[in-house]
Amino acid sequence: MAPNTPKLLDEDGYELWLRYALIEDTVLRTQYENALQAITFNVTSPTQQAAMDELMRGMTGLLTGRPIATSSVIHDGTLLVGTPQSEPAIAALELHDALETLGDEGYALLSQSIAGKRCTIITANSDIGLLYGSFALLRHLQTHRSLHNLHVLSAPQMRLRMLNHWDNLDGTIERGYAGFSLWDWHKLPHYIDPRYCDYARAMASIGLNAASLTNVNANALVLTKAYIAKAAALADAFRPYGIRIYLTARFSAPLEIGHLDTADPLDPNVAHWWQQTAAMIYEAIPDFGGFVVKANSEGQPGPHDYGCTHADGANMLADALAPYGGTVIWRAFVYDADVTEDRHKQANNQLVPLDGAFRDNVLLQVKNGAIDFQPREPFHPLFGRMPQTPLVLEVQLTQEYLGFATHLAYLAPLFKETLDADTYCQGPGSTVAKIVSGELDGHPHSGIAAVSNIGNDRNWCGHPFAAANWYGFGRLAWDPALTSDGIAEEWIRMTFSNELQIVDEILAMMLPSREAVVNYMTPLGLHHIMARDHHYGPGPWVDMGRADWTALYYHQADADGIGFDRTSSGSNAISQYFPSYAAMVSSVETCPETLLLWFHHVSWDHVMASGRSLWEELCFAYDEGVGMVRQMQARWTALEGLIDSARYEHIKALLRIQLDEACWWRDACLLYFQSISGRPFPAQIEQPGGTLADYMAITHYYVPGIPERRF
Amino acid sequence: MAPNTPKLLDEDGYELWLRYALIEDTVLRTQYENALQAITFNVTSPTQQAAMDELMRGMTGLLTGRPIATSSVIHDGTLLVGTPQSEPAIAALELHDALETLGDEGYALLSQSIAGKRCTIITANSDIGLLYGSFALLRHLQTHRSLHNLHVLSAPQMRLRMLNHWDNLDGTIERGYAGFSLWDWHKLPHYIDPRYCDYARAMASIGLNAASLTNVNANALVLTKAYIAKAAALADAFRPYGIRIYLTARFSAPLEIGHLDTADPLDPNVAHWWQQTAAMIYEAIPDFGGFVVKANSEGQPGPHDYGCTHADGANMLADALAPYGGTVIWRAFVYDADVTEDRHKQANNQLVPLDGAFRDNVLLQVKNGAIDFQPREPFHPLFGRMPQTPLVLEVQLTQEYLGFATHLAYLAPLFKETLDADTYCQGPGSTVAKIVSGELDGHPHSGIAAVSNIGNDRNWCGHPFAAANWYGFGRLAWDPALTSDGIAEEWIRMTFSNELQIVDEILAMMLPSREAVVNYMTPLGLHHIMARDHHYGPGPWVDMGRADWTALYYHQADADGIGFDRTSSGSNAISQYFPSYAAMVSSVETCPETLLLWFHHVSWDHVMASGRSLWEELCFAYDEGVGMVRQMQARWTALEGLIDSARYEHIKALLRIQLDEACWWRDACLLYFQSISGRPFPAQIEQPGGTLADYMAITHYYVPGIPERRF
Repeated sequence: MAPNTPKLLDEDGYELWLRYALIEDTVLRTQYENALQAITFNVTSPTQQAAMDELMRGMTGLLTGRPIATSSVIHDGTLLVGTPQSEPAIAALELHDALETLGDEGYALLSQSIAGKRCTIITANSDIGLLYGSFALLRHLQTHRSLHNLHVLSAPQMRLRMLNHWDNLDGTIERGYAGFSLWDWHKLPHYIDPRYCDYARAMASIGLNAASLTNVNANALVLTKAYIAKAAALADAFRPYGIRIYLTARFSAPLEIGHLDTADPLDPNVAHWWQQTAAMIYEAIPDFGGFVVKANSEGQPGPHDYGCTHADGANMLADALAPYGGTVIWRAFVYDADVTEDRHKQANNQLVPLDGAFRDNVLLQVKNGAIDFQPREPFHPLFGRMPQTPLVLEVQLTQEYLGFATHLAYLAPLFKETLDADTYCQGPGSTVAKIVSGELDGHPHSGIAAVSNIGNDRNWCGHPFAAANWYGFGRLAWDPALTSDGIAEEWIRMTFSNELQIVDEILAMMLPSREAVVNYMTPLGLHHIMARDHHYGPGPWVDMGRADWTALYYHQADADGIGFDRTSSGSNAISQYFPSYAAMVSSVETCPETLLLWFHHVSWDHVMASGRSLWEELCFAYDEGVGMVRQMQARWTALEGLIDSARYEHIKALLRIQLDEACWWRDACLLYFQSISGRPFPAQIEQPGGTLADYMAITHYYVPGIPERRF
Repeated sequence: MAPNTPKLLDEDGYELWLRYALIEDTVLRTQYENALQAITFNVTSPTQQAAMDELMRGMTGLLTGRPIATSSVIHDGTLLVGTPQSEPAIAALELHDALETLGDEGYALLSQSIAGKRCTIITANSDIGLLYGSFALLRHLQTHRSLHNLHVLSAPQMRLRMLNHWDNLDGTIERGYAGFSLWDWHKLPHYIDPRYCDYARAMASIGLNAASLTNVNANALVLTKAYIAKAAALADAFRPYGIRIYLTARFSAPLEIGHLDTADPLDPNVAHWWQQTAAMIYEAIPDFGGFVVKANSEGQPGPHDYGCTHADGANMLADALAPYGGTVIWRAFVYDADVTEDRHKQANNQLVPLDGAFRDNVLLQVKNGAIDFQPREPFHPLFGRMPQTPLVLEVQLTQEYLGFATHLAYLAPLFKETLDADTYCQGPGSTVAKIVSGELDGHPHSGIAAVSNIGNDRNWCGHPFAAANWYGFGRLAWDPALTSDGIAEEWIRMTFSNELQIVDEILAMMLPSREAVVNYMTPLGLHHIMARDHHYGPGPWVDMGRADWTALYYHQADADGIGFDRTSSGSNAISQYFPSYAAMVSSVETCPETLLLWFHHVSWDHVMASGRSLWEELCFAYDEGVGMVRQMQARWTALEGLIDSARYEHIKALLRIQLDEACWWRDACLLYFQSISGRPFPAQIEQPGGTLADYMAITHYYVPGIPERRF
């Protein structure tokens, strides 16, 4: 018989960036193996056990053989892991200065000689720090970095680093495009799917420490005893990995499951009901994180229903959680159906007056922009306007408005754009990152949250590249100063290969990918022109229902021009920004062209920096978006044979879908806008196929990402 | 560093019975390796390629090394694969007699010497026969059977061997408990999930050759061009594996998507619309199987809406499919909401008069029993009553009424019970198997169908043991003469281990498991006493909505006794059976006690064969059911350490759920029936806990298995 021959094994993406594939560079591997011949790690807790298991799993995969476990340092080339409390050999090193910088979640990776033996040390002030440090060391190996003279001290910039799952109790996921919910409520609490553990590993590997399990369009049932027992089983599974769970609290729960006749936050019976509910939860989940609340937004119930303010509502819940150390995360995505004011302004109008009125354990969670996770938005004008309130930045990983899970769109550049945005609230350099990290206003609470893009698809996020957004979010939540390309490079090396050709090609696909989506969907500051309800595909003609759910409201295209005037001649939303930023964007001349139509209604004939008219520029931008997808396809095709065939074919098929849909967006939008502008398409661009009527007639049913069914 | 040590690797069940784990018995493995040193298989079609790939995959896993591929037999110990058409060496053997028995799907496995070289031969008249034969040979190796003097000739008894997926276009599965739909309609036709191929492999490995992709509560949208393109992509993926696809046809589709104002089957415009739809489908899917239709049943539209018969409706569709060789599979599960007649009788009442009125390409699909997939039902009285019409037997793999996917219930004994049931329609021996195989009435069409239990759970069927039902169904569809224990043993050996202790323990768990469910849910012929709508848990008190959707209608419990009188003093449903069977079941004395309350209303004090009263027997039966689950638990626990820990823990957790729910069923039902019988519980049984009111107050929301949402 013939021997079994090796080949590039098909991968399904389940392992994410934790593949731990054997390092094929034998020189490098030998260096690692010499440095890691033994491991000394006296495990004293479940979190330490998780760290030990991960180190052994990682090293067993990356290296040939596995380290010998020893109870003290006796080998040259030892990995020594522990806190000063758990490991005398580390206590003896007297690392006070280093440890002081690490806080209660940071870690240190150090090269140091102990009794003449070369050691690599992972230390921290806490067990979770050791786990984070273990993942950091493995990442070091996975990305082929040197273990020589290691001196890494790392601590997170944000305390709360959270995923918000919009998972429904019926297993669907609102705006989820990677299958259905991971949480198998029917079999919980008894059956603990091993995938829960792998989820927690992935979370911890990038430093995320919180998960809100349920949809912000909340279902009160999750606060009943049966569901709390199920949630507690998940909390138990996640606890060793440092992940605290949160639940979404439906404001009307006292009515729906509490047998009360009001949910008025000032009613003592209501407050009492929430106190009892909190007590019940904390009995089952002692480290329960708290409630995430969407109230008085898009039809959800809230304190306004009783003539109360957001602060009244949030504080009532905060008081129920305070005895246990829990927090309320109150979403700032609030707007009223019966208010005609520019939606852009409503959050500031409602919330800025409440600055200082919230309890200490209330955090206000603010979307990156004022509308709704569009491909590009300017930063939200709340940032900097509520110095007495800790603000949590909310971004969206799930690509509700960026092509679902079939479009490659690397979003770290989008997150960075917001984090690095300068609000000028305390002068230049008052970035969003400094506000949400608490640095600027000295808040003990700080945080960043992302709407999850995870489902039960085998590869977690649907598109193999969508995992890079989960990864990138976690890395930026830990350290907002990291760069988009640095993060992408790490992810590529861990996900695909350390081969330079592969790294370079994929990097060149990822970095401009979000800009490609902006171009073929909403260039030059356009926004909210997608199909209604399911948001699948273009819908610049959408004109049904309330004004601020239409496309016409947002693009304001007419015979003269296009764009939403948010200057003083229009809604004056610009006035909510601090003067330095407001001045820049309020002038058509100084406003970045990427945001031009966000803030201004501009003539079709306005001359752009390129010398083209706005109309031409719009056409070129849409066409450029399509061209950028073609470039991604060409780069990917060049990698055939260098990537395992399962992932290669998967991504190839998705790029085909992305190209089809990019053309759909371009052609539908340009034909529609042409019907208003009355101007010809530039000859240089690919001429749209089909007719506007064809595009407007397209109807899709059963688009993924559906809301829960209610009883 | 220490060497990597082997351990019992965790398995997730994805590989099903096609694990191909290395044979650890070195003596046996060496025998196999000697017999299979080379392979001669001149591949000439995609189906042959699938066979070759599977053989190489299987042998590479089971054996060390892989066979050398040679273009002719030159090695002693060669596996020779081909049809007489594709392989001259096989043509030269002149196997006419053997091949004649195989038909167009059967296969032969033969040991034969060719030019002095020992050969193992897989041959058939068709490529698909070669694929089936390849899986059969691998099964032979997987179950450690000898390759010595092989002489296996095998051909399927049924032509149509089908799964009915009740998958909705929104990704949910009606009555599905193993996650959500495998079919990713959103990404089809472009992205072909590799899982589609693994599904087809599993289907072909047990000889299944047809799949109806969509819910019988059909959605007309699947007949639109966009969805047909998606279905065609699935058909393309399945074609090499011999699987033809079917779609469910919503009878009112001409109204809903055809812009007609009627769906009257006698209206020429309606017939024309269906002809055009068929033409469109066959253009995309040249080997499209046909339509599965649920009409005038449970509120679905159908020909009765226009004063027409089932034959009118079915024939109109059959005429549209006939030019392409397609068939209509018309479900016999029909009953009208406004008819007060015992639901048991309605199918016969409506359909028997139509025998002979259906076109040749119409098959009537009849559930195993007359009510609805209960844990035990007598065979359906239609079997034998429609000799001019080919009948397809329909069974349910998904455990709608048998504990969803958290109860271990091996269903081959249930399927066998029906297949072996003697209808006496042409005298003794007129079994259901002979009717549906077409043998009794000489039909060219024959078939068996099962409602799928497959979803996107990693292990396909939710409960690791539920895969045995998929497996068992396929094996029985091929050969109804196989035994339940023989099939179970094959499945255990392929799924877990060939170790005798393991095989014996698991066999002892599986074989009585369906009887355990009967006992703790519906013993002695009870039926349809589950919770309403979602069918999760007991509901003997259910008394809402139409009579034949309540439990009270079916159990008829009163102060005197319990059971549905279907004798001449009652509904006289018994009269629909042939006299020999009718006579047996119509007397309380000769009616099997397992069906007593199905056919009779019996006094609580009736003396059973055991000498106990009916009331006592009922109590003992429920308690025995719980006891049987405890025995399964004990057997499983004895296997700790012999099964990989992932599957061990998974099944252990599910048995815990099963025990809880068995107690729930027993206690709720016994407390309820006691409230009517007024009799005490025998002291020997475990006394029910809680109160009847407690059980009646239990409400579950978001139970899996939900219907599609409609627009």
